[in-house]
Amino acid sequence: MASQLSEIGRQCYARGWVLGTSGNFSAVVSRDPLRLAITASGADKGTLSSNQIVEIDADGRVVAGSGQPSAEASLHLTITRARGAGAVLHTHSIWSTILSEDAGENRLGIEGYEMLKGLDGVATHEHHEWLPILENTQDWAAAVPQVEAMLNRELKTHGFLIRRHGLYTWGRDLTEAKRQLEALEFLFEVMGRKRGMTWQK
Amino acid sequence: MASQLSEIGRQCYARGWVLGTSGNFSAVVSRDPLRLAITASGADKGTLSSNQIVEIDADGRVVAGSGQPSAEASLHLTITRARGAGAVLHTHSIWSTILSEDAGENRLGIEGYEMLKGLDGVATHEHHEWLPILENTQDWAAAVPQVEAMLNRELKTHGFLIRRHGLYTWGRDLTEAKRQLEALEFLFEVMGRKRGMTWQK
Amino acid sequence: MASQLSEIGRQCYARGWVLGTSGNFSAVVSRDPLRLAITASGADKGTLSSNQIVEIDADGRVVAGSGQPSAEASLHLTITRARGAGAVLHTHSIWSTILSEDAGENRLGIEGYEMLKGLDGVATHEHHEWLPILENTQDWAAAVPQVEAMLNRELKTHGFLIRRHGLYTWGRDLTEAKRQLEALEFLFEVMGRKRGMTWQK
Amino acid sequence: MASQLSEIGRQCYARGWVLGTSGNFSAVVSRDPLRLAITASGADKGTLSSNQIVEIDADGRVVAGSGQPSAEASLHLTITRARGAGAVLHTHSIWSTILSEDAGENRLGIEGYEMLKGLDGVATHEHHEWLPILENTQDWAAAVPQVEAMLNRELKTHGFLIRRHGLYTWGRDLTEAKRQLEALEFLFEVMGRKRGMTWQK
Repeated sequence: MASQLSEIGRQCYARGWVLGTSGNFSAVVSRDPLRLAITASGADKGTLSSNQIVEIDADGRVVAGSGQPSAEASLHLTITRARGAGAVLHTHSIWSTILSEDAGENRLGIEGYEMLKGLDGVATHEHHEWLPILENTQDWAAAVPQVEAMLNRELKTHGFLIRRHGLYTWGRDLTEAKRQLEALEFLFEVMGRKRGMTWQK
Repeated sequence: MASQLSEIGRQCYARGWVLGTSGNFSAVVSRDPLRLAITASGADKGTLSSNQIVEIDADGRVVAGSGQPSAEASLHLTITRARGAGAVLHTHSIWSTILSEDAGENRLGIEGYEMLKGLDGVATHEHHEWLPILENTQDWAAAVPQVEAMLNRELKTHGFLIRRHGLYTWGRDLTEAKRQLEALEFLFEVMGRKRGMTWQK
Repeated sequence: MASQLSEIGRQCYARGWVLGTSGNFSAVVSRDPLRLAITASGADKGTLSSNQIVEIDADGRVVAGSGQPSAEASLHLTITRARGAGAVLHTHSIWSTILSEDAGENRLGIEGYEMLKGLDGVATHEHHEWLPILENTQDWAAAVPQVEAMLNRELKTHGFLIRRHGLYTWGRDLTEAKRQLEALEFLFEVMGRKRGMTWQK
Repeated sequence: MASQLSEIGRQCYARGWVLGTSGNFSAVVSRDPLRLAITASGADKGTLSSNQIVEIDADGRVVAGSGQPSAEASLHLTITRARGAGAVLHTHSIWSTILSEDAGENRLGIEGYEMLKGLDGVATHEHHEWLPILENTQDWAAAVPQVEAMLNRELKTHGFLIRRHGLYTWGRDLTEAKRQLEALEFLFEVMGRKRGMTWQK
């Protein structure tokens, strides 16, 4: 699992999605009791080594490894709990930062693209995906109830954005979460580049 | 052939043309009876291994290897048959997605660029290439007659687009198909970036 | 240290931040007396070898290695002295070149982005970063007093821009300087791409 | 020399400057008699091997190696002769294609950027570079007198563009030509991206 997290980190870093030690990744190690492998705070995602991945319990306490878990560990635990996810990926990309910025909108709609089929359970390009946009905060522990309520309300979403911050997506395992991450980032780039076009239809 | 398909996958993945397990590639293994090596459904194109490539017959049945062939295998077979292609490449790039999106247009015209000479038989930049744009569907088996008719009508085209989905191109072999893929994706990027310019002539 | 400088060079080169032998990097070898390891003038940053890194003293004289230090060595020494930096990185990126170009502005403001937390001591996205923009010159030795005065006045800045030229940032060590470089270049790209959007809010 | 040409090819390919087997590179092997190592026609620049590089004489005849020299070998010979160049690099990039497209202009002006110092003999960002833009043709042998006259007239230029086609630059050796190539392509990208900005000064 450490090597898979490290390889995902390397690829996201190469694409510019986790620059400046940003982003964080987790995967479920065991369900009962809940144990999450999660990237340590401040780790360079381009060169993740196994000792930069710590194991936390359901309360976010480190139970194996040294180093601080990410400050956003509570979000990873909430998603794992609310959605039964086996892996959670969080990136800071150019396009998710820009698309989440528009004030007054609290969700980003995506429809009509074949790439939507990269999302779990989506079988047609005619799918409508609505990604909630959360306001950014520096106290995610306090925001857990609100995030959990959103996840229980927006049952069809495959991810969410944090304004001027980035994307969270998840899946049954790292393979599925990575596929969804790539599909969503692709769609963000398509939508972002279209905003720069002056004579598009 | 598996290693050549895998290398093409790796390069297309690095360029962002087959993210989220999208895209699919095939090459003719034998003509009589027709046998196609084709990427299995759901394979990560950045790390294709030989057991993610299956062999199918003229009816799309798996005759070697395990795993499902791509849901678009019928398109690969149709192109192989209608054009005598030895290899078919299908990518989902940012620019082909955007350029194919304009409603009301059923083809994309490209002319005047030196890079057009990357297309088979094109000897001058004065060439006019017209790429048909097909509507997207989730039932390509049903669409085969229409695609075949288009391929028999548009005899000069080196590829076609599927709306908000991506590009198909083909060639005598993987080397030629790859050269055409790169030439077309380059031209899409040139044309797409020009759409974003506000003071171009 | 040479291998860390070389790895940073390789990564910056791959991202297009130090093309054409542009950019230069330094790190403090000793404080008393001051010794700086700095990239030699004209070195290709994609393939830095240890013999392309020279050691200079507080007056910019080469004390170890052969080759000329960068023409901007005086800036590295000034930053090291004024800020107590352990490492200084200077890049020539597309976006820093473009954002620094606007005439009449002598600073670039960045605020509201999570990525700002990649900067030393910044704990919230609500931070306001103001990067001074210096006029370009070919005589940095003569400009040292002015740069030093700016560094002593703008005590909160994590870097500065030189108009149509590039970025300087620094840190306690190469790891911190690299993190800040990536965070700032990311933010430049976000801001630069937003300038190309015609229907943004 | 073959390995240096191959490495330059690999890097240019990775940056998307020689897709679809486009572009060609040459270097002087001997001056008297003149012998040029030049990439063979149709070679994939991402994987150049030594047997894809042929040696030609002053008349463009192959004197060593097998395969056709590039159709633009006469341009390489003309530049080598007129400028005493030791190496010539020709790329097909997105930005050189777009910037060379404007009808009615027969040169591209670049001024005020630090990156201009990547050009041989340029010691200040205040330099004005004027790159001639030639009309594209498929008969470069016939165009040699016109190109030679241009090279003898525009003595200060470090390269030229061919409309909707790409860039030629050269240098004393491959190292200098590569540095200039990177500097010019960087500047093209800066200028091209600025054209897409709607609220720039």
